[in-house]
Amino acid sequence: MSARNQYLQSRHTNEIIWPEDRADPEAVRLLKNIGTLFICPDDGGQEYVKPRRNAALLWKGDVILWAGSEGELPGNRDLPEPDESFDAEGRVVIPGLIDCHTHLAFGGWRPDEFELRSLGKSYEEIAAAGGGILSTVSATRDTSEQDLIRKSAGLLEEMVRLGVTTIECKSGYGLTLEDELKQLRVYRSLKNSFPIRMMSTFLGAHAIPPEYRDKRGKYVRLVTEEMIPAVTEAGLAEFCDVFVDAPAFTIEEGEVILEAGKKAGLIPKVHADQLTANGGAELAAKVGAVSADHLECVSDRGITSIREAGTVAVSLPLATWYLRKEPLPARKLMEAGVPVAVSTDFNPGSAPSFHLPMAMHLACTLQYMSPAEVLKGATIYAARALGVNNVTGSVEPGKKADFVELDTESVNHWLYHFRPDAAARVWSEGACLVTRQRN
Amino acid sequence: MSARNQYLQSRHTNEIIWPEDRADPEAVRLLKNIGTLFICPDDGGQEYVKPRRNAALLWKGDVILWAGSEGELPGNRDLPEPDESFDAEGRVVIPGLIDCHTHLAFGGWRPDEFELRSLGKSYEEIAAAGGGILSTVSATRDTSEQDLIRKSAGLLEEMVRLGVTTIECKSGYGLTLEDELKQLRVYRSLKNSFPIRMMSTFLGAHAIPPEYRDKRGKYVRLVTEEMIPAVTEAGLAEFCDVFVDAPAFTIEEGEVILEAGKKAGLIPKVHADQLTANGGAELAAKVGAVSADHLECVSDRGITSIREAGTVAVSLPLATWYLRKEPLPARKLMEAGVPVAVSTDFNPGSAPSFHLPMAMHLACTLQYMSPAEVLKGATIYAARALGVNNVTGSVEPGKKADFVELDTESVNHWLYHFRPDAAARVWSEGACLVTRQRN
Ligand SMILES: [Zn+2]
Ligand SMILES: [Zn+2]
Repeated sequence: MSARNQYLQSRHTNEIIWPEDRADPEAVRLLKNIGTLFICPDDGGQEYVKPRRNAALLWKGDVILWAGSEGELPGNRDLPEPDESFDAEGRVVIPGLIDCHTHLAFGGWRPDEFELRSLGKSYEEIAAAGGGILSTVSATRDTSEQDLIRKSAGLLEEMVRLGVTTIECKSGYGLTLEDELKQLRVYRSLKNSFPIRMMSTFLGAHAIPPEYRDKRGKYVRLVTEEMIPAVTEAGLAEFCDVFVDAPAFTIEEGEVILEAGKKAGLIPKVHADQLTANGGAELAAKVGAVSADHLECVSDRGITSIREAGTVAVSLPLATWYLRKEPLPARKLMEAGVPVAVSTDFNPGSAPSFHLPMAMHLACTLQYMSPAEVLKGATIYAARALGVNNVTGSVEPGKKADFVELDTESVNHWLYHFRPDAAARVWSEGACLVTRQRN
Repeated sequence: MSARNQYLQSRHTNEIIWPEDRADPEAVRLLKNIGTLFICPDDGGQEYVKPRRNAALLWKGDVILWAGSEGELPGNRDLPEPDESFDAEGRVVIPGLIDCHTHLAFGGWRPDEFELRSLGKSYEEIAAAGGGILSTVSATRDTSEQDLIRKSAGLLEEMVRLGVTTIECKSGYGLTLEDELKQLRVYRSLKNSFPIRMMSTFLGAHAIPPEYRDKRGKYVRLVTEEMIPAVTEAGLAEFCDVFVDAPAFTIEEGEVILEAGKKAGLIPKVHADQLTANGGAELAAKVGAVSADHLECVSDRGITSIREAGTVAVSLPLATWYLRKEPLPARKLMEAGVPVAVSTDFNPGSAPSFHLPMAMHLACTLQYMSPAEVLKGATIYAARALGVNNVTGSVEPGKKADFVELDTESVNHWLYHFRPDAAARVWSEGACLVTRQRN
């Protein structure tokens, strides 16, 4: 039995078929009868999703050969004949969704904090009373690697069913050398088991652990001198992230950590300007971060900085919603020319849902983004936030065949008529991972 | 082939098993190994959900015989031995969800209004430009009874999968005698086909139809003198509802219509105080309405009136959310002693989602209600809003065996960890309608 099956056996549902193998690398496949294909090219601006009515899609193995109006296909002599043909039955097709900011592996849950917040307590009051990140740190340290793998695999399976084919996962609930490595090894195990794209981020600078409260400098040195070398030596992460804000790290500490990460080959990311406009976006620009995430409080100067640096703004509407904060200024960012990605921030405290379409729906209502703008935010711009926009995030020749068939009439209709499970089929690298029987 | 199968055939999924027949009226069934049972009694206040750990549930045919801690069961000589036994595998069990305010049957959809609103246009601006209720009236008039049945059946099936076992459905998109009767006949057909409880509301006074814009009095007489007698003669509705607010009917018109309905045997309901505090709640109290729905703008006097009249306040958080309005003062209502129900208001404009758990989640965050308070709002208090609180809405001896097994640890966890499909099994009148394979 493969490692993948081992993990999934205990969660097997009768509607998910995890293919034993990727598609035959030589097989040419055709998806026809697509009602509308949303190509989502990297260029053209936030709202340019490039819809094609009555479309078709041709791919070979895991790579897209051709995408366009079905009528243009027959005369095209440069394309091979398909070995296999699939019928989209008039559905909408979008690029595979990309969740570019999650904290997937953690011990425990914090449902009672949700009840307290529903009765009016603030996140800060709850953290002061022993809740918050540090309670999850304690639960994660107490959970074995195998148990974390099992729990995360179940959650990840449900994410894939929603159409997610690329996901970023952060550490940051260990905060000791061993527990940070443990979290990152969980992601490596999942990566070996799940037929989707997974990328990992070292977030040792998520919070000051309680045992270092009075010796922050020592913790920063632990991060830069021990954790980062160990993480990179084991090849366990692509990115290095820092939470720079009042309860966590200062701008100066953040810069030291991100520069140490860069030297070791980790691409910087920043949890920036979530609680105060303390210069997180400016730091992201200064160190050349691939993304600045949160930005609920970003200043005008911060917006200018990340635009000039080419940094992607990652909006996290679920966290804004659960914490009842003011949203980031999405329209202002877009008008300034900053690409705005949309992600879940899935974690057990401030954003305890992995439901990316729910985050997308919230982005429309909370952040005043149109469904088309949000679609680019959860596909090609999320790919940019992970540096994989040449690989996935749009349905174009040369890209990986990552796409989702949605039971809906349009992207407007999909995010408007919010329903539990619109994804009819989910395709990752040319292989069909999820099939729902409808109609 | 039964009528039920006929409708469902085209939507059959491999995970829903619609039982051919209700449970054998003589069969005694046991559900054991319930992690926590939430009884949700009618008394005890909004937050009193009466949880029982390690519980079991015994029912005969469609009626509950006993519910309580599993340990108390063996010694109980007054109870029969079960013919069949089911394992809840530690899940949470709640009463079957009750959606007490929907506009289920309608022609068309209005997704582009959602896009316009995401870009900042108001509902009022969109209605003035030809959108809003009247565009759905036109689409509904143009849709055949059979097509409305087919579309509504698909939506209703998905609602049942979420755990809904009782639903109220309103007319109000016909606004001619024939089209109002058509909508209500759609509900009667569904009622004959679906193994759940359905109740219908005549809402001829949903809007002034365009052809009566300059002769409102004539339309009110059409409603009272022709529509109400035709509806009651055909036995097509239990309730009569009126939308009293600026763009629709005045308080005086509302009173005339509700009194005419009462005389004909229809129980009054009111769409009250949604856009302005114009006395909708006071009207509900005056006519003895079973519920006053919306109440986003209710006045202190309105609150006092409905408390004294024993009228249920029905909150509709999805409509508040989609329209970005201020929510109703839920805590003030609860503190005044008014029971607050939670419902979807499912309709193609202001609340285009049938997702009752999503509405419940929004009620926590938007309306500052705790998960327990929200649970009573979508079960026993929703039953009160339909006058069926002696029949369903709680898991107690003598009640119908309507309940849901949820894949979660607690009600806090369910509404906090918002995921697509937590309902593992849905039971209606003793029969299992939905089974999802998990674990
Ligand atoms: Zn985060
Ligand atoms: Zn309504």
